[in-house]
Amino acid sequence: MINETYKAMLNGKSIIRELSEYATARGKEIGYENVFDYSLGNPSVPCPKEFTEELISMLKKADPMTIHGYSPSLGIESVRKAIAESLNQRFGMEYEVKHIFMTSGAAGALAHALRCVTKPEDEVLTFAPFFPEYEHYVGGAKAVLKVVPANTETFQINFAAFEEMLTEKVTAVLINTPNNPSGIVYTKETIQRLANIMKERQKKFGHDIFLISDEPYREIVFTGEKAPYVSQFYKNSISAYSYSKSLSLPGERIGYLAVNPKCTDADKIALMCGQISRGIGHNCPPSSIQLAVAKVLDKTSDLSVYEKNRDLLYQALVEIGFSVVKPGGTFYIFPKALEEDAKAFCRKAKEYDLILVPADGFGCPGYFRMAYCIDTDKVKRSIPILKQFAREVYGVSVC
Amino acid sequence: MINETYKAMLNGKSIIRELSEYATARGKEIGYENVFDYSLGNPSVPCPKEFTEELISMLKKADPMTIHGYSPSLGIESVRKAIAESLNQRFGMEYEVKHIFMTSGAAGALAHALRCVTKPEDEVLTFAPFFPEYEHYVGGAKAVLKVVPANTETFQINFAAFEEMLTEKVTAVLINTPNNPSGIVYTKETIQRLANIMKERQKKFGHDIFLISDEPYREIVFTGEKAPYVSQFYKNSISAYSYSKSLSLPGERIGYLAVNPKCTDADKIALMCGQISRGIGHNCPPSSIQLAVAKVLDKTSDLSVYEKNRDLLYQALVEIGFSVVKPGGTFYIFPKALEEDAKAFCRKAKEYDLILVPADGFGCPGYFRMAYCIDTDKVKRSIPILKQFAREVYGVSVC
Repeated sequence: MINETYKAMLNGKSIIRELSEYATARGKEIGYENVFDYSLGNPSVPCPKEFTEELISMLKKADPMTIHGYSPSLGIESVRKAIAESLNQRFGMEYEVKHIFMTSGAAGALAHALRCVTKPEDEVLTFAPFFPEYEHYVGGAKAVLKVVPANTETFQINFAAFEEMLTEKVTAVLINTPNNPSGIVYTKETIQRLANIMKERQKKFGHDIFLISDEPYREIVFTGEKAPYVSQFYKNSISAYSYSKSLSLPGERIGYLAVNPKCTDADKIALMCGQISRGIGHNCPPSSIQLAVAKVLDKTSDLSVYEKNRDLLYQALVEIGFSVVKPGGTFYIFPKALEEDAKAFCRKAKEYDLILVPADGFGCPGYFRMAYCIDTDKVKRSIPILKQFAREVYGVSVC
Repeated sequence: MINETYKAMLNGKSIIRELSEYATARGKEIGYENVFDYSLGNPSVPCPKEFTEELISMLKKADPMTIHGYSPSLGIESVRKAIAESLNQRFGMEYEVKHIFMTSGAAGALAHALRCVTKPEDEVLTFAPFFPEYEHYVGGAKAVLKVVPANTETFQINFAAFEEMLTEKVTAVLINTPNNPSGIVYTKETIQRLANIMKERQKKFGHDIFLISDEPYREIVFTGEKAPYVSQFYKNSISAYSYSKSLSLPGERIGYLAVNPKCTDADKIALMCGQISRGIGHNCPPSSIQLAVAKVLDKTSDLSVYEKNRDLLYQALVEIGFSVVKPGGTFYIFPKALEEDAKAFCRKAKEYDLILVPADGFGCPGYFRMAYCIDTDKVKRSIPILKQFAREVYGVSVC
């Protein structure tokens, strides 16, 4: 008599995780250095040494009961304050402590934000290509995720489709820029136009439509690009941030939700999150990690390797003849497969120990994702293999 | 248009937290050392030094990408294995890795376990006095919590009431021994009798009834007492454990759920928890803390102070004339108030800077809880004040 709903979910394994597990197993056979594992978005550069130093120093000197003691359910006040101040300084916002809620990464932030601003049966719009876990976060809030088809020319927003789908049922729009899986950074024009349409519809429908901005890749933006701060453009907005990528701490499960001080019920949302977390049984991220992160808010890992990898891969993919939009950030690239069925394409690539993720689950069939958060040396070694694969399987001749 | 359900919850603040906040504020006026703050169950002894040493050593020597990298969503395999082996050795169980799911403390374990073994509208029984957050964990699973009235003679189980309430609608029974707030440890006889009744009803109703055992105080058991391991007595059982109390790490949010290998669908429950955590947005406890805890599984903080405090307080309370059952573990004691209305009683105690928690929220009106996880010196200094309060307000004369 265990719960049948959750039992049924056991069949819905993540394709990313399956491929990553395959890569690990294959690595045991042929040496992991020979598996070109582009499956998982797991940072490949260490956390900043300042983070480690701060944490060690705290463990050595501070009172253990302070650093390991209960955190208030909204997060440690000094940490929330430091985050608010850092965001204000960088993005000209006016966050106060009460607008910041500490979370278990961006995942926790999104799951809480969605519960706050939707009710069961509401529609939530997101844009293809999108991170497949959104289905679960939106499902957890009992709302319904609707996916606006991709603009595959640029991977900016397909506004025609968006305007059509932004009906009265929609109470939240969920965006992710810089984007997983496309690597694209939404331009200022894109965000402004999105905001204008949403404002107009709010007025027309007479109800709030919240913009939830998933921003774990905010700091991974390449030369010449700039990622606008989404909440500057729209009042009813909530930012969901994670230190997983910028500080290379994905296992520590730390991030936050920042409520736009100008949104409806701005003073209540973080408090509501505190209440929501009670039923979930997860009260807040680890206390010692909160305290250590607060000391290095303006640091990042050395993220330059991702730009180097982007350059190498983009050039190679174009050379081979892939249709691909140049990523402006993240550590993903999102080419069109060399046959219509991206699953078949990725299956064939696997024979060459190239682990690529078909994008059907990202709402963009026919494309695939490469997570290039791997050693640059491996990226380099993968390029001849990519070329060989394209030549032998698809007859693409490259020099 | 924010979610009205969660908004309404903002009025339901925890009385414990309110009193704790009052104590902190009052401490700023008169010095916290003068506030006899018995409100919060926050450990007052540091974590074992071995924990700190292991964590520092790991931070210094190990690859940051390993210690801070993504943990699998069920927890780090080596950690789960170490926990299974430790439990097997200590309690003669046969747990394997697949039965252990790492959680954000016992709260996370309970929230996941309840979702696994109930469906919406099912009834979950628990026993007064009980930890008020159970309402939220059960509510999160959309099941209905029913509270079996207390046996105030001994704070063991009121079996007459239990047998009456254990109807066909019940799919889970939630127990907590050693108990918060009573401090009582269920005897072997109590657990055996509980198990026998549940077995008989499973047969009668033709469906599983799961026993969920909340065990954060398992290691805090005083001289002469023994806390039986609940899962030895009943097959359809799940243990929910936390390192918050035994290792004094409440802020680090780490615990686990251990599925009885003999229960229905024993191989599926941890996997289901992994699926459930996707919608919640909380995948697993912090990676570095998982790894460090695994190194000190058989250590505890120096818990002897709690027994010392128990002795002092129990003796004083009996001397004053309180009706009180002697706690066998935890760091709580649960006397009957000196007037019928425990809220009024605690309000009056506050005038003496004695911060006591009325037990209405614990399902036991007329009683109050004292969390004596505080300095022994403060416990000693509080005793004359307790006596003065009882004398001046209730005319109780004590030497």
